Amino acid sequence: MADNTAPFAISCGDPAGIGPEIIGKSWIARKEKCLHPFFAVGDISSFAGIFDGPVIKIHSPNQAADAFSEGLPVLHVQDSGPLTLGSPSMEGAGCALQALELSCGLARSGSAGAVVTGPVSKEQLYKVGFTHDGQTEFISERCGVARRNAVMLLAGPSLRVIPMTIHMPMHEVPKHITRNLVISRGRAAHRGMTRNFGIKEPRLAIAGLNPHAGENGHMGREELDIMIPALEELRNEGINISNPLPADTMFHKSARSQYDVALCPYHDQALIPLKTIHFYDGVNMTLGLPIVRTSPDHGTAFNIAGQNIANPDSMIAAIQMAKTAVDHRKVFDA
Amino acid sequence: MADNTAPFAISCGDPAGIGPEIIGKSWIARKEKCLHPFFAVGDISSFAGIFDGPVIKIHSPNQAADAFSEGLPVLHVQDSGPLTLGSPSMEGAGCALQALELSCGLARSGSAGAVVTGPVSKEQLYKVGFTHDGQTEFISERCGVARRNAVMLLAGPSLRVIPMTIHMPMHEVPKHITRNLVISRGRAAHRGMTRNFGIKEPRLAIAGLNPHAGENGHMGREELDIMIPALEELRNEGINISNPLPADTMFHKSARSQYDVALCPYHDQALIPLKTIHFYDGVNMTLGLPIVRTSPDHGTAFNIAGQNIANPDSMIAAIQMAKTAVDHRKVFDA
Repeated sequence: MADNTAPFAISCGDPAGIGPEIIGKSWIARKEKCLHPFFAVGDISSFAGIFDGPVIKIHSPNQAADAFSEGLPVLHVQDSGPLTLGSPSMEGAGCALQALELSCGLARSGSAGAVVTGPVSKEQLYKVGFTHDGQTEFISERCGVARRNAVMLLAGPSLRVIPMTIHMPMHEVPKHITRNLVISRGRAAHRGMTRNFGIKEPRLAIAGLNPHAGENGHMGREELDIMIPALEELRNEGINISNPLPADTMFHKSARSQYDVALCPYHDQALIPLKTIHFYDGVNMTLGLPIVRTSPDHGTAFNIAGQNIANPDSMIAAIQMAKTAVDHRKVFDA
Repeated sequence: MADNTAPFAISCGDPAGIGPEIIGKSWIARKEKCLHPFFAVGDISSFAGIFDGPVIKIHSPNQAADAFSEGLPVLHVQDSGPLTLGSPSMEGAGCALQALELSCGLARSGSAGAVVTGPVSKEQLYKVGFTHDGQTEFISERCGVARRNAVMLLAGPSLRVIPMTIHMPMHEVPKHITRNLVISRGRAAHRGMTRNFGIKEPRLAIAGLNPHAGENGHMGREELDIMIPALEELRNEGINISNPLPADTMFHKSARSQYDVALCPYHDQALIPLKTIHFYDGVNMTLGLPIVRTSPDHGTAFNIAGQNIANPDSMIAAIQMAKTAVDHRKVFDA
């Protein structure tokens, strides 16, 4: 288990995107937002173009805590060459990949208390030899966790959601809604709420796949044939989970107060309500890993990079949520 | 065209549900909310159990305007027998159906300026010989409009959505996303915004079917193969419509300000954001009819009927939206 006083590693993400800017802005906000000490991992020169505050080059994570009060500590990985903000390059992608690899390793070894990943461009990463579906898959592998057991949670102050399937065409979704998937996601959600958020008796809600949750088989049978039997099995294990709910009426304010996390059969069902409500302060957390990993819930935003207008709220929330998880894990894993 | 000073007919919906209660509460709010004169259509005795205000029995819509300032005008259709709020009966369903039929006829003839339909139980209606999918289909038929040309719009103060497919299992949705559907819904949305809301150059947004709108064919091809060519055709007709957008990032506040209406390939994609934001004040409007028809965006709520706790905001918003449409149609259809 990582030492929960260890500083957090923040991988810079693509240096031509808004990663360095929002990391710098998070450092500026460190006192106001009571942020746990962190250090950036990336090309130190990529901060110069966008961040006016002090930058302190560190050579090891154990220098970060002292440096943190004086400036933004940066663990330099490699020079990504001349940088044009908003115009990604192969050198920049290489730097992003190195930063991700190193951050992950430091968290694995306990030198970093958690890893917060800055936004990358998968298109760029593929040009430098990246072969995973995304950062989550990469980190799972580095942690020795099977992809199917690393579960994406998206969370804002008033809503947490787990998409049970993610990046697949809609026509493929129904056949992926299996008994095993419902059970494994239900277990991951239950354990994830307790381990990372300290919720002792988590209340889980689950959306139906079909409109009106199938309306008793009138609009699809996945709820009756697959989901409900699997949910009964989860209940037999002591997990508090609803029957499939109509997705359209489960996300307004008073409905949200009835559960701690909502499981949704597909991507948009989970991400529409989350991003409608928490567009600027949503956080992506990976459940099921030995390390704590969070990430802001947005992309590289190349289109606004270098203009000093990027909103750091999601990055700040990701750092705060990592701290919440580290603290609760200390108790849970003890 | 209906006279735009004619009072609105509000069908009572199932008398054992919250319909009579929210109609009575809307009458109470008539001055505060500047409501156009209306009359209820249903069993006059069903108002007695839940509404303390004055009820005035009228025999013709032309008595409604005078009566409206003194009490809730009710055009009595039939006695629905002894009523237990919260416990629907076949007599009650029969009354709901008669009220719907009469309200619709009065709007068709111009005696009513618009029809606002109270919530019904389809399960109950089917027991008394109803054969349509819902009230919208019934009204379309009575108006001589083919079902496929009557289009459901759901609207709240900050968002309007059109689900392009509605009550079908998710696995059937992809094959229903055809060129013809995109074009017909695009035209209906464009015309509906101008005719009912007075928006001269409507800005239409459309969601992709797949996550991230398919990400250039990486997660589904419906956007590339079907939607984009159809959208080009709509643009050739002078309709301002977006290319398919990732559904998860199109409903937060600043995104919503970029369009007047969002078309969504399936039910939950449209109704999740609408009901998340506008759970209590969403309105259902049917586009493509010769008459103005609106409805509160909720059901009979048998579980809370008779407790005097039903929220009338959606019914009030439905009456207000009907007035908006009547006024704009007067100009558009002139």
